[in-house]
Amino acid sequence: MDAADPSESQLKRYRRIILLTDGFSTPFLAKTAISLLRYRQNDIAAVLDATEAGSTSQSLFGTGGPVPVVATLDQTDGDALFIGIAPPGGRLPEHWRPIVVRALSRGMDVVSGLHDFLGDDREFARAADEHGRQLLDVRRNNERHTAQHVQFRKGCRRILTVGQDCSVGKMVTSLEIHRVLSERGKDAKFLATGQTGIMIAGDGVPIDCVVADFVNGSAEALIQRHEEHHILLIEGQGSISHPSFSAVTLGLLHGSAPDGLILCYEAGRELVKGLDQVPLPSLQTLVTAYENVAALRNPCRVIGISVNGRNLSAEQTTAECKRVSSELGLPACDVYRDGADVLADAVLALGGSDHNGG
Amino acid sequence: MDAADPSESQLKRYRRIILLTDGFSTPFLAKTAISLLRYRQNDIAAVLDATEAGSTSQSLFGTGGPVPVVATLDQTDGDALFIGIAPPGGRLPEHWRPIVVRALSRGMDVVSGLHDFLGDDREFARAADEHGRQLLDVRRNNERHTAQHVQFRKGCRRILTVGQDCSVGKMVTSLEIHRVLSERGKDAKFLATGQTGIMIAGDGVPIDCVVADFVNGSAEALIQRHEEHHILLIEGQGSISHPSFSAVTLGLLHGSAPDGLILCYEAGRELVKGLDQVPLPSLQTLVTAYENVAALRNPCRVIGISVNGRNLSAEQTTAECKRVSSELGLPACDVYRDGADVLADAVLALGGSDHNGG
Repeated sequence: MDAADPSESQLKRYRRIILLTDGFSTPFLAKTAISLLRYRQNDIAAVLDATEAGSTSQSLFGTGGPVPVVATLDQTDGDALFIGIAPPGGRLPEHWRPIVVRALSRGMDVVSGLHDFLGDDREFARAADEHGRQLLDVRRNNERHTAQHVQFRKGCRRILTVGQDCSVGKMVTSLEIHRVLSERGKDAKFLATGQTGIMIAGDGVPIDCVVADFVNGSAEALIQRHEEHHILLIEGQGSISHPSFSAVTLGLLHGSAPDGLILCYEAGRELVKGLDQVPLPSLQTLVTAYENVAALRNPCRVIGISVNGRNLSAEQTTAECKRVSSELGLPACDVYRDGADVLADAVLALGGSDHNGG
Repeated sequence: MDAADPSESQLKRYRRIILLTDGFSTPFLAKTAISLLRYRQNDIAAVLDATEAGSTSQSLFGTGGPVPVVATLDQTDGDALFIGIAPPGGRLPEHWRPIVVRALSRGMDVVSGLHDFLGDDREFARAADEHGRQLLDVRRNNERHTAQHVQFRKGCRRILTVGQDCSVGKMVTSLEIHRVLSERGKDAKFLATGQTGIMIAGDGVPIDCVVADFVNGSAEALIQRHEEHHILLIEGQGSISHPSFSAVTLGLLHGSAPDGLILCYEAGRELVKGLDQVPLPSLQTLVTAYENVAALRNPCRVIGISVNGRNLSAEQTTAECKRVSSELGLPACDVYRDGADVLADAVLALGGSDHNGG
């Protein structure tokens, strides 16, 4: 999905998207659908989940307002079917195959962020061909840039979200800080690094699907393509301590050589999501770990904390933000509940980028 | 190249290999050829480099004894042509295309470790087909294992080489420690993680070519396939501080969850190879960095130092080993000059693996 990719704007052109989450409408698995409902609600025609049909997105996911949940493609009229889940491993559920074929035959394009590319599937490719439709695999890439330790433009401030774990709100935090800075008239850009972010923003790099030798380089090249902006809000991935995905996290950190980090976590989570025997390191441990590994490329500090209070009440969340802010000596907020003003202030307080590119 | 891959043993079956380094016979670029000469000398028929023809491998590379350097394929009789270089970025030099086609037409298989797969090249694929020969891309893989923070078998000691930089001798160090332990009758296995190591050992995982999300997992799966052994010597990759390749390094470190690390460096090198404006961190900085990031998965220590003295005299190398050993408080040796006994001792002194898998 690099700058020259013709599908870049394509993704933003759909106006009647159907989000496929059939049988997987949980907050963890359906996070692609939920984020699209949150950030592109006007472009979403329906959610397809036969097990939840008749409901609305708002009642199913807590976002998306009146967007209906339908049982079949025949109940609504869409221009694209978006695969709305991000399962670990990234495979298409078997019972979705006829739904994908049916969407193509009804004249819809199909957009997927799965690791297994729909375009490489013979049956799907044939159906797309037959009906003159497109299969867009947003993770497909041919990144071949070896990072060169580029000195980025002074005056381009790079802010990366980092996490205690996967699925704690790194993308949302970057998007919300971007929203606040834009509202304040700042020249800021959100840089997507994952399939959902790319579906929202229309471009970016699917960094978790880049060949390992080019992970750092794909992040570096992403920055280079956008360094004319004053502030870049870079969507973080995984966690430096995640047993499965730390390679992605470090490649993104070293490749983008940020000037500041925002640490994201979910209040109350104590174990690695999906690896329930593995305890999460403390936030203080992670602040130290991120700053130490960052310093190997470009010294920078954690400048703020993004608290995900989805399992807490509003009152508990406020208390948690206060507690963690005092514990770590850093500004903290829940960007869903409070907006991201506090973190936007921290970004602006960073001042000019004086130690660009190490 | 996983355990089930039919080409696993295939690579070990060739007995008259021609190493192609034409125009690139420098120690840095031709490291694949040099390592094959060192570890599979009896299987090498010739080196092909028209610019150095008439020489021997020994005089060209300092290893390989009487293996001749030839100008064309017609001067010798081989069963396979091995691409003998590892250029950054991994592309085939343009003027080698007719040589590859010629090899196929002369009835040879062609083995490559480049990022750009020969098998995906239409002209090469057609030529291979026509002559009934094989194109073996050792970096080709379909790794799809998400790391699960596996508790490895107690009693399987995992030793990973790590580096101050690329191309400092991590593979050679692992191979030499393996050699010593085998000579002492220990049940040790060398695990290859790079294209050259795979060409030598016949199996392994080409970890720098794995899709980012599965880097940690491919290392974990590699260990699982071989954890019946008492000691695993795991070939390290890149460096935790390398601006281009740190993602690979960390994925391998967290996926293999080693019990001990051997830090490798080249005496006298002060700048990152290929990025000549970037200073290398000190060895002490790296010991700390490796131990700190390792602790996020499985606490372990650097237990020895492998000194690459290729730019020093024998006397200088001995002095350097003494100096660094005293500075870091760890055993140190040059495995080429001294053999790896000192490091093998350090591995054995580690004792049983009591903190397996964190």
